[in-house]
Amino acid sequence: MSVRRSPHVRLSDGNGGRFMRVLIEDVFARRFGRGELDTSLDATPVDLPHGIVCVTTDGFSVEPLEFPGGDIGSLAVNGTVNDLAVSGARPHCLTLAAIIEEGFEIARLERIADSVGAAARAAGVRIVAGDTKVVPRGHGGGVYLTTTGIGVRKPELSLGLARIRAGDKILVSGTLGDHGAAVMLARQAFDLMGTIVSDCASVLALTDAAIDVAGLRFMRDPTRGGLATVANEIVLATGLGVRLSEDAMPVRDAVRSVCDILGFDPYYLACEGRVAAVVAAEAADDLLCRWRKLPDGCGSAIVGEITDAQSLVVLETSAGGERMLEELEDDPMPRIC
Amino acid sequence: MSVRRSPHVRLSDGNGGRFMRVLIEDVFARRFGRGELDTSLDATPVDLPHGIVCVTTDGFSVEPLEFPGGDIGSLAVNGTVNDLAVSGARPHCLTLAAIIEEGFEIARLERIADSVGAAARAAGVRIVAGDTKVVPRGHGGGVYLTTTGIGVRKPELSLGLARIRAGDKILVSGTLGDHGAAVMLARQAFDLMGTIVSDCASVLALTDAAIDVAGLRFMRDPTRGGLATVANEIVLATGLGVRLSEDAMPVRDAVRSVCDILGFDPYYLACEGRVAAVVAAEAADDLLCRWRKLPDGCGSAIVGEITDAQSLVVLETSAGGERMLEELEDDPMPRIC
Repeated sequence: MSVRRSPHVRLSDGNGGRFMRVLIEDVFARRFGRGELDTSLDATPVDLPHGIVCVTTDGFSVEPLEFPGGDIGSLAVNGTVNDLAVSGARPHCLTLAAIIEEGFEIARLERIADSVGAAARAAGVRIVAGDTKVVPRGHGGGVYLTTTGIGVRKPELSLGLARIRAGDKILVSGTLGDHGAAVMLARQAFDLMGTIVSDCASVLALTDAAIDVAGLRFMRDPTRGGLATVANEIVLATGLGVRLSEDAMPVRDAVRSVCDILGFDPYYLACEGRVAAVVAAEAADDLLCRWRKLPDGCGSAIVGEITDAQSLVVLETSAGGERMLEELEDDPMPRIC
Repeated sequence: MSVRRSPHVRLSDGNGGRFMRVLIEDVFARRFGRGELDTSLDATPVDLPHGIVCVTTDGFSVEPLEFPGGDIGSLAVNGTVNDLAVSGARPHCLTLAAIIEEGFEIARLERIADSVGAAARAAGVRIVAGDTKVVPRGHGGGVYLTTTGIGVRKPELSLGLARIRAGDKILVSGTLGDHGAAVMLARQAFDLMGTIVSDCASVLALTDAAIDVAGLRFMRDPTRGGLATVANEIVLATGLGVRLSEDAMPVRDAVRSVCDILGFDPYYLACEGRVAAVVAAEAADDLLCRWRKLPDGCGSAIVGEITDAQSLVVLETSAGGERMLEELEDDPMPRIC
């Protein structure tokens, strides 16, 4: 059926009728792979493999919507894939809900949908259900996406904050803060823009390698609030301490420079393609070795350890001093993911 | 840990740090029932019963956020519960992602979270995962919610558009357009406001009764675009026709009056607690009888039938004429759900 197309999203593209159907089919469904998404269903049957089913959800409101190294589409897929991956689950399928502002350019929406499709294929997940709402001009930030992921974990795999012990080592799979710095620069007219690229990516290869390591206790992707926030979550949940070494922490020079100029701390900046892992001390070198063999893990490092210093996150500075990394309060950077 | 609370949502409530943790725990998690939501997990393990796992997602941007008969919280839960229910699946768990505008009143957010919790308990579903983002003032419509639902369907249950045959009957479980009319009135300063209450509710009792009827072909909840849109989806998918009888269609007098005044057609108005079902002709009275015994089904009616009139939705008017109900194009009412 021939339908008038507009180069911009209209309120009537979200009303449940013909325009919405065309928008969903033309812009979204056909970019997610043939037969992937049956738009005529209220709920989609999925065929999950055996194991423990795990569920996660995440909303995305990044600004700008496109940035060096990714866009809100790749971010929304990888963010949810990674939440499953660090839980030890193999991502199986995703749902995608879009809230789109009236007047949004269709060509840009198509680029974002392409990016969703490409990231989903790269991570081996299907988009099985979706929803589209259009809000009036001035009531949205262009596009907000929410992805929900379903994955399956092997029953014998036991990971979690409760398994962490004093003496365990903390590893990160690559440089810290690239995503946060890239988005921050993309917002501003700095000359530095383009020198820093978001690390936005699936971490599945990294988590697959890690779950084979005996002594793996816990994994988390250091997104909003960065590694410092993961460390604070660990001390809050365990009552133990975290000791990090500034010298060991992999941070790109360009990211450090941007942080110095703008007064940010790279340890609080978001990553979107990194894993922070806690492992038994004797297993740390094994994990480091496995990660360094992977393309996405060549920058990995042992950055600290779990201590019995009650609920404190301490950074040993390069100058030989100590600095507390407190739980984040003021927001240095809204709409980072 | 004592944390400064503000009566309004701040950007720092969405940054991944302490304020966000407090917001999530104080406003959301504790309203969803003790131990329901472990906010320290990246992904939540869920224990699904045997059967075919079904998934659905839906974004909600209703304006106003609170209206007679419900609010965005009850709407977000029931909307997703109902998408599972009409698919023949028993809803098991939900995820909830909120995009909140800076400056939103905490007390109002608490009312919405209360409503989410109450609707989830009423439908017997757990909220198993959540996410909160805060966007700067002027970049949101107060609160947008996205719910994703996971349910389980009995393997032997076969429902779907493909099962519909000419001669089948169409039933609705109650009056049409109440939700659409209630939200529309709540937006405006009409004196009529308050006389119409949204039908927002779980339809589980209705769908449970229906799936026991041999000859049940298909169910859908007539939300955005109303019953006329469900009818158009049927003709689009089957190539058959739909014939509806205006005299048989249950519409409250108050809803008809509002439609007459404002130039809307009640058959295109959203319901949020009704089921439209297609059944074999010989089973129609059985379903009607079962529905009428239920508190939410006392207004149910046989409203039409499937014909072989190729892809046409025809309304027999009370005056004895015929009117085509076309697929919706212009949006009479944005942000209805």
